[in-house]
Amino acid sequence: MNLQTLTHYALKHITTQSSLFFASMADSSSKPAVPLLKDELDIVIPTIRNLDFLEMWRPFFQPYHLIIVQDGDPNKIIKVPEGFDYELYNRNDINRILGPKASCISFKDSACRCFGYMVSKKKYIYTIDDDCFVAKDPSGKDINALEQHIKNLLCPSTPFFFNTLYDPYRDGADFVRGYPFSLRAGAPTAVSHGLWLNIPDYDAPTQLVKPLERNTRYVDAVLTIPKGTLFPMCGMNLAFDRQLIGPAMYFGLMGDGQPIGRYDDMWAGWCVKVICDHLGLGVKTGLPYIWHSKASNPFVNLKKEYKGIFWQEEIIPFFQSATLPKECTSVQKCYVELSKQVQEKLGAVDPYFIKLADAMVTWIEAWDELNNNTSEEASSKQANGAAK
Amino acid sequence: MNLQTLTHYALKHITTQSSLFFASMADSSSKPAVPLLKDELDIVIPTIRNLDFLEMWRPFFQPYHLIIVQDGDPNKIIKVPEGFDYELYNRNDINRILGPKASCISFKDSACRCFGYMVSKKKYIYTIDDDCFVAKDPSGKDINALEQHIKNLLCPSTPFFFNTLYDPYRDGADFVRGYPFSLRAGAPTAVSHGLWLNIPDYDAPTQLVKPLERNTRYVDAVLTIPKGTLFPMCGMNLAFDRQLIGPAMYFGLMGDGQPIGRYDDMWAGWCVKVICDHLGLGVKTGLPYIWHSKASNPFVNLKKEYKGIFWQEEIIPFFQSATLPKECTSVQKCYVELSKQVQEKLGAVDPYFIKLADAMVTWIEAWDELNNNTSEEASSKQANGAAK
Repeated sequence: MNLQTLTHYALKHITTQSSLFFASMADSSSKPAVPLLKDELDIVIPTIRNLDFLEMWRPFFQPYHLIIVQDGDPNKIIKVPEGFDYELYNRNDINRILGPKASCISFKDSACRCFGYMVSKKKYIYTIDDDCFVAKDPSGKDINALEQHIKNLLCPSTPFFFNTLYDPYRDGADFVRGYPFSLRAGAPTAVSHGLWLNIPDYDAPTQLVKPLERNTRYVDAVLTIPKGTLFPMCGMNLAFDRQLIGPAMYFGLMGDGQPIGRYDDMWAGWCVKVICDHLGLGVKTGLPYIWHSKASNPFVNLKKEYKGIFWQEEIIPFFQSATLPKECTSVQKCYVELSKQVQEKLGAVDPYFIKLADAMVTWIEAWDELNNNTSEEASSKQANGAAK
Repeated sequence: MNLQTLTHYALKHITTQSSLFFASMADSSSKPAVPLLKDELDIVIPTIRNLDFLEMWRPFFQPYHLIIVQDGDPNKIIKVPEGFDYELYNRNDINRILGPKASCISFKDSACRCFGYMVSKKKYIYTIDDDCFVAKDPSGKDINALEQHIKNLLCPSTPFFFNTLYDPYRDGADFVRGYPFSLRAGAPTAVSHGLWLNIPDYDAPTQLVKPLERNTRYVDAVLTIPKGTLFPMCGMNLAFDRQLIGPAMYFGLMGDGQPIGRYDDMWAGWCVKVICDHLGLGVKTGLPYIWHSKASNPFVNLKKEYKGIFWQEEIIPFFQSATLPKECTSVQKCYVELSKQVQEKLGAVDPYFIKLADAMVTWIEAWDELNNNTSEEASSKQANGAAK
């Protein structure tokens, strides 16, 4: 209840701030307002190349701090356009900071981005791929994806009952007739999952079958994924509340030395959703769109994905039926419990899952070490988000 | 599996037919194609006034058969514009046809529309209110709401896992990366719930608080309401597969002599969703939009609704936790079982629910009588839609 009240205050606050921000953006004669959550949000970018893509994002990202996680050869120099405030971590840095626990961070795979979530000291994270550009809305206006994510995160979710006019907290919308009044305060929003125009996020088989398909449909909606329903969470354009759900945003073991790739964000999404459902937190999807510029190679993707394509047929029923005991009152406790269930139930699918379950525990240990709290402390911090 | 296969064939068929239809509409020199499902769909309209609103719908509705259910004084003459093929039932007709079982049909309330579902001999029903007009899409084109509903009903739903690009069966869309392949055949669609531009479907308190709010947001999406999630089903712009779910589309006891109004469609929606979830059927919401012209009086609405506003706080948890035994393999069996649970568990909320539970049973008896089948026969007809 406390968290909800807080969220409501935050919402009122943001609405005011946001109007201010819009007003000052629209009226070029007034001095620029402070961007939303400027000192409370980090942008995490995994990359193997120079970050020229940031030029296009400059009007929206420059006020924020960037955490760049270099994926692959640590000797390569990554150029960041001038004027951005950033810190950059390569594999050597990760090894130095985490020591033996660095084994939980993937190498030569964008899954390494989750290291950035761990070293951030901010409340919110936005993560984006370096082949994602600014999209335009149907009126031709550049979409400030980050601002929409912040709005999504700062207003509540509605996981317990579906609202047919979508997000009831948006301007011009509300709860429809028949929506229970007791549920209209909503639940705190932990995750905001954005979408992609142009190249859709398809798996290798679909890429192969539909090489020319482009997403041109702009759906002007944000909605809550209902409690008890899993979804395919894509890491390309994703924001979350690190304090509410951060320790569950582990992108698993992918890439170099692992039997699987391109399931890093999916894995995180399944774990996150089960834990959000347990803790009474919300997950939103829909706006904002980014422009996804380039389809990755479907043949390479098929090689990375093919074990996942089989495994997910067992993984998804596992997550669909996973339940967490009431004692799991913090994200850390939930995640460690989930790792045990992964080992027990998915270990039989492939020994990879035993290794992954271990890495899940290592990840939590590393998270708590870097964030100066034990699971116990974390659990008391999380006490407001009581288990359902 | 049989039903799914059938649905797939239907989908292929409709896609072809639909292209043909579009082509002939666009090219005025060619002769008009046969409208989709012309002989398989009835349009049900409850009304108390002359049906002038049909003029605007003429290009879309005229090929179809209408079932008009006259709500209120049976001596009043309802005028129907020329050229429409219709049958009209007033209260005297209902009493004559159903005899003592007519008690289950509401009087002086649009809930009486469900009598039209019962007397129809078609596979599909579309129902619309007489204050709903043709809406325009963002390009300014008139929306053929019925055609969109038919598309929704003839292609599968995805109740078991959320697809972030919405309906994967629409042109230009598909299942995204991480969507389990075993679930891509989808489930048969039983219900298509359409939305409203202009006057949103708000309850009396929201109407009172936001008298000037209009829905101007055109969301270009159709999506499946996930299994296990309830939603507020509005009867204003609604289509369904009568063979798959018809006997659950009972709009309850409202209006004259009843303590409650404006919960007829909500009641049907809760029952329908629980039964669809049990039988593995899908419910879609989103497109098409109609133009809802007139807000009903919020003071009158408050009087009708206020008991429902309290009761729904107990009704919704009841439906959220309702489970049906495996033996319930037909809609009729599910519905009768649900009526027992209503009597047992909601009877304590108010004696009204005991009367309603009785009416639910009467409704099923009347349905089976008019449709020449017993529950046993119905259950074998429904055998393809196996219980989950």
